[in-house]
Amino acid sequence: MTKIKRHREQFPALANKSYFNYGGQGPMPQRALDAINEAQIYIQKIGPFGSEVNTWIRQQTKITRAAIATQLDVSPDTITITEDVTVGCNIAMWGVSWKNGDHILLSDCEHPGIVAIAQEISRRFDVEVSTCPLMSTLNEGDSVAVIAQHLRPSTRMVVLSHILWNTGQVLPLKKISQLCRDNSVFLMIDAAQSVGLLPLNLQELGVDFYAFTGHKWLCGPGGVGGLYVRPEVRDLLQPTFIGWRSVVTNGQNIPIGWHPSGIRYEVATSNYPLYVGLSEAIAVQEEWGTKEERYQQILSNSEYLWNSLRQLPSVKCLLANQPPQSGLVSFQLVNQKPEDTDNLVNSLESQGFLTRTILDPNCVRACVHYFTLKEEIDQLVEAIQRYQHSTK
Amino acid sequence: MTKIKRHREQFPALANKSYFNYGGQGPMPQRALDAINEAQIYIQKIGPFGSEVNTWIRQQTKITRAAIATQLDVSPDTITITEDVTVGCNIAMWGVSWKNGDHILLSDCEHPGIVAIAQEISRRFDVEVSTCPLMSTLNEGDSVAVIAQHLRPSTRMVVLSHILWNTGQVLPLKKISQLCRDNSVFLMIDAAQSVGLLPLNLQELGVDFYAFTGHKWLCGPGGVGGLYVRPEVRDLLQPTFIGWRSVVTNGQNIPIGWHPSGIRYEVATSNYPLYVGLSEAIAVQEEWGTKEERYQQILSNSEYLWNSLRQLPSVKCLLANQPPQSGLVSFQLVNQKPEDTDNLVNSLESQGFLTRTILDPNCVRACVHYFTLKEEIDQLVEAIQRYQHSTK
Repeated sequence: MTKIKRHREQFPALANKSYFNYGGQGPMPQRALDAINEAQIYIQKIGPFGSEVNTWIRQQTKITRAAIATQLDVSPDTITITEDVTVGCNIAMWGVSWKNGDHILLSDCEHPGIVAIAQEISRRFDVEVSTCPLMSTLNEGDSVAVIAQHLRPSTRMVVLSHILWNTGQVLPLKKISQLCRDNSVFLMIDAAQSVGLLPLNLQELGVDFYAFTGHKWLCGPGGVGGLYVRPEVRDLLQPTFIGWRSVVTNGQNIPIGWHPSGIRYEVATSNYPLYVGLSEAIAVQEEWGTKEERYQQILSNSEYLWNSLRQLPSVKCLLANQPPQSGLVSFQLVNQKPEDTDNLVNSLESQGFLTRTILDPNCVRACVHYFTLKEEIDQLVEAIQRYQHSTK
Repeated sequence: MTKIKRHREQFPALANKSYFNYGGQGPMPQRALDAINEAQIYIQKIGPFGSEVNTWIRQQTKITRAAIATQLDVSPDTITITEDVTVGCNIAMWGVSWKNGDHILLSDCEHPGIVAIAQEISRRFDVEVSTCPLMSTLNEGDSVAVIAQHLRPSTRMVVLSHILWNTGQVLPLKKISQLCRDNSVFLMIDAAQSVGLLPLNLQELGVDFYAFTGHKWLCGPGGVGGLYVRPEVRDLLQPTFIGWRSVVTNGQNIPIGWHPSGIRYEVATSNYPLYVGLSEAIAVQEEWGTKEERYQQILSNSEYLWNSLRQLPSVKCLLANQPPQSGLVSFQLVNQKPEDTDNLVNSLESQGFLTRTILDPNCVRACVHYFTLKEEIDQLVEAIQRYQHSTK
């Protein structure tokens, strides 16, 4: 058995299907599942509430924060642990002291939840929101130039995804970050698709706010994500949703200030066994290879899928000219009707191939991870081909 | 074996200790632990992401929302599921359209996290915050009158706990609710200690916002709580932290409005197996008896503990004249030094009795649930007595 096949045996979700929804949720290693269950039981054994269990929870939280930090190449004290990526985006977007007339620039490829945050901030504080067209820069044009053209003197924050969740395009974050810095604009990144996929060094990228989740490319449990806040802007970002975790208290338990680290944006009781699950999931990825090695394997797999799909006369990959820079491969059916993508996705799911529909642009998204097998990709492409023949 | 001893066997945390920290976290039934683990595995089996698993998650979430609603005697569509009680408080407190000069009235017994929310709202919107003294109404005086005296023409929101977490006092919520209604003031309740303890009928109580958790008196997992919003005020409370769960989208996935129910305040991906765990925990409580039966048994147990503690010459219960109306029993040591409570709590924990220190007023809090045994209470009281003798 090859190394990768042995590695895959740790993921029960991979045993009974061909999985291409890593961008939706990653499969959990059995070790992570077991660690969660054992931690739930351990908490009952020594607690569930008391000084012994509270000490244990603090230790586990520290370990998880450190494990997350290694994946972003930052110091653990820059990390806020959240329930999901969107909570991280909310912390960053609500924590700025918005003024009447400020401007938020979004791309046209942001997740509807993030768009809704911007809309509500706009309504409450008379902030202007506009959108710059990045979807069309997938194959030609310069995303940095498009963003630059849409900046205004009143722009306070640019909100983008590092990897666009619909087309899989990887934005040149270092350049965008420099552009924002030069214009004194906060840069807030939805990193739902990039953490666990790209070999990140956030300090080098220079981004202000980077919100992510553990349950997609890192293959941790649903319900744990986080936010990186650049230490230099921490004092410019006020906590909004607040709880006992956010504050330092005095001897009478009265809050007298924010926690000095990224913990200030955390709220109250979480399910800490899930943190243990995320630490284990990260450890499993690290055991297979470094971030760079995993990324190179993802690129090898996504190029293989992209190339295979391009051989099908009935398929049009969104990415036209060069192989993907991420693990997301989106494609359309030639002459498709709107319902065709759903029909194909449902047909594939019934045969054990899990992909998903994207609404804008209307397409099918198939994701490959570093542990995706070339033979899985071959079988997916064959299934798409069969579907095409059957519907002709 | 008595019915209650058989019932207790379902809670592994109770097997190796004498537990009096229900107000911190409740022990989970084995059925709930198993249900969580099985749900985590099931999600891997049919997903973790695809249409089959998404349908299953929607069903489970619906079941949990309905189970929570039975405990509050409200319609499921008034319930928002959150990570914890404090998130619920944040939703209610940040969702009001604050204006310069508005006033928030807190009691002097609110949790530091909630105090910090009010402080930050004050800072951001020039809202005034003041505190009314309810701690001193434990044994004499009229809490409703105190609140009434501290209302101002500018008061927009009163923030109180239904059961004060430090003294265990149960506030007369129906009267307070009427007072607030008469003064056109929002009433926001921190229900951390009341859900799963009091036999609630929120519609009758008339409260606007009622934030709670599943992991204390309901004995569910950490990481799941909720918020009730009175349907008549839903459109006055805007969502603040927002995500894909909050919104209704059009065919291009663009948000076009809020979800019509309490779901509008939910954000994004949670750990849904925890929801299954909470449903199971609620089912276990319901199997033992109705909300009213459980409450009567809690009162019987807390009166027994309170009476027993009052027999100790070295102990002074905070509640002086009449037995507790909740499961929280707080007491001090006669002539105590500040460190004495911690020393006692630590000594008790080392002997397997889990209680906790409260800082203001400095005291020890021991909680009893409906399944607490009289013999456990006897042993706790003996251990306190022994401690007193040993430190003389």
